[in-house]
Amino acid sequence: MAEADVQTPALIVDLDAFDHNLKVMRGIAAASGLRLRVHSKTHKSADIAQAQMSRGGAVGICCQKVSEAEAMVRAGLHAGPHTGLRDIMVSNQVRGAARVARLAKLAGQADMSVCVDDVEGVAELSRACHSAGTQLTVLVEIEVGQKRCGVQPHDAARLAGAILAAPNLHFGGLQAYNGAAQHQTLETERAEMMGNVTAAVREALAALTTAGIHCPCVTGAGSGSYPAEASSGLYTELQCGSYIFMDADYRARGGPGVEPFRHALFVLSEVMSTAVPGRATCDAGLKSMSMESGVPTVWGRTDVSYDQPSDEHGGLADPLNMLRVGDQLRLVPGHCDPTCNLHDWHVGIRDGRVECLWPVTARGKLW
Amino acid sequence: MAEADVQTPALIVDLDAFDHNLKVMRGIAAASGLRLRVHSKTHKSADIAQAQMSRGGAVGICCQKVSEAEAMVRAGLHAGPHTGLRDIMVSNQVRGAARVARLAKLAGQADMSVCVDDVEGVAELSRACHSAGTQLTVLVEIEVGQKRCGVQPHDAARLAGAILAAPNLHFGGLQAYNGAAQHQTLETERAEMMGNVTAAVREALAALTTAGIHCPCVTGAGSGSYPAEASSGLYTELQCGSYIFMDADYRARGGPGVEPFRHALFVLSEVMSTAVPGRATCDAGLKSMSMESGVPTVWGRTDVSYDQPSDEHGGLADPLNMLRVGDQLRLVPGHCDPTCNLHDWHVGIRDGRVECLWPVTARGKLW
Repeated sequence: MAEADVQTPALIVDLDAFDHNLKVMRGIAAASGLRLRVHSKTHKSADIAQAQMSRGGAVGICCQKVSEAEAMVRAGLHAGPHTGLRDIMVSNQVRGAARVARLAKLAGQADMSVCVDDVEGVAELSRACHSAGTQLTVLVEIEVGQKRCGVQPHDAARLAGAILAAPNLHFGGLQAYNGAAQHQTLETERAEMMGNVTAAVREALAALTTAGIHCPCVTGAGSGSYPAEASSGLYTELQCGSYIFMDADYRARGGPGVEPFRHALFVLSEVMSTAVPGRATCDAGLKSMSMESGVPTVWGRTDVSYDQPSDEHGGLADPLNMLRVGDQLRLVPGHCDPTCNLHDWHVGIRDGRVECLWPVTARGKLW
Repeated sequence: MAEADVQTPALIVDLDAFDHNLKVMRGIAAASGLRLRVHSKTHKSADIAQAQMSRGGAVGICCQKVSEAEAMVRAGLHAGPHTGLRDIMVSNQVRGAARVARLAKLAGQADMSVCVDDVEGVAELSRACHSAGTQLTVLVEIEVGQKRCGVQPHDAARLAGAILAAPNLHFGGLQAYNGAAQHQTLETERAEMMGNVTAAVREALAALTTAGIHCPCVTGAGSGSYPAEASSGLYTELQCGSYIFMDADYRARGGPGVEPFRHALFVLSEVMSTAVPGRATCDAGLKSMSMESGVPTVWGRTDVSYDQPSDEHGGLADPLNMLRVGDQLRLVPGHCDPTCNLHDWHVGIRDGRVECLWPVTARGKLW
């Protein structure tokens, strides 16, 4: 089927750009000597996660929710060639008896890890794994400037000690991630944020050393900040997600981290009205693209711009009246992760033709 | 099951508030003497659409996409008691051979109507209905100030004439809707916009009269503007959607239209970290709530506020450190329609217990 025959709106992946991004990040991780753990929350697709492990150099994946990890396991995600293990990290805190019990059960099917930032969390995980008869790797999340989750760095040793003492748990290292640093426009601001991140990691590592605790892993970083983590000499693992697709927000903010990557994700949309002079309306709106980070850009065109989102449609400025009903536009979403979560399929396109359909395996898996 | 045992994040409907909203809008429509056609795009649920027809006084529904209408028909939406017909209007333009063929086929299963704003659209619909052996009601959309879709009002008669002359099509009247008027904060601005809307309708009706064409229906309005359309003496039908749930954006902008309605839609979320003093993190973010119209408000609490959305989580200011891990919060989404589209289920709650589960029938049906 030709791209022109795809029913719009549709989430399409430019496979040449996708392959380019896979290869470039594999090279970056290899050159840095660090492990690459990719974020499946970006695409929510077991097929893409598998490609990142088999062809993209990743040792495993991060998930954000237990249900996302469950969906990946159910979809048959198997081990990458690097570890021989199906390696899934839930890269934040999992709390509450029902949710923790699901995580503990899943640890019987995959090599699971998770983060904690308080001692009650450690006890809850240990009890659940004991009941399920499974083992879990637990990392201490430290607060590195975003004021979201994480203990103060000097407190890392206390929590690591609690993990080491807890039945069925293993201490996995430190989680140190600053989401806000991914989206800084100014290099100076990003550098300042990352200076705080690395200072926090250094302090936590020192606290562990003082306590005589070996730290097997320092993991974090994202597609906007990874050059800083990679060159810090502190991290052992990079967590990147958006590199595989890019989006309008990452591109607009720029920086050395995103420059090597190409836009691979688009929402294909069709013009359905040109009745108002100087304007056009297309069939993709807020339910096709997440717009909290801004409206989409129109790929390859400078004569028209998307400026008026509705729920199901989009208003375009078309001052030269260039658009006709039926014209297809490739829209670059403002924010790739929540955009993928709106769709049921990734439609893979190469040379203007549909080459594959990848289900959005973990769409809506939020609990 | 108790609300406290629902796995979060979850989309919950307060059924007492929902019933209140159903009843209030039924009364408003009855008092105005106008037909009520409800927007299923708000909730995307066949069960809720059915309740709006059987208990809420609606004569039929609007859908925004053919796939949404297909999903409603597949889910067994049957006729309301008012017309004896399963009455579905696709309240904008449907273009492109494949999409139009689907609409023409659906017209064999339900009393379908749709809008046009150019003559090629009329020809395309007529051909498809002729091929499918079905009949379709077609309304002329007029441009009423939003500069989205619609012909200039004086051009309505030309297009109505084309519909009347086209095999298998019936002229259904005028679609006149200004989406921007729903979200005005100032009554003076809303009044000015609505003055332009009614002036456009008057002009289009005059053009039809001059051409000797009877106009069977003038339809439009939304939950923010309907008092103006209802009192204009021009409209015969109100299209309201958000009244059934309300959201933080509608509430913040206020106005006489929204005052009678209660908040019925919430995202139930749970606190999963309080490690950072003065802050808390809950388990609902951009993938649980659409935030292009602003962050959610926290229902019933003035001591905490949601101020830092992440993809899967939300950061809360908690200056008095009141929150504990496991605390549940009812979040009022900024924008109800795209929020419902993120979920698979509406969880109906009454007196703190789950009373029903309604599937989000048309979630992701965008084409």
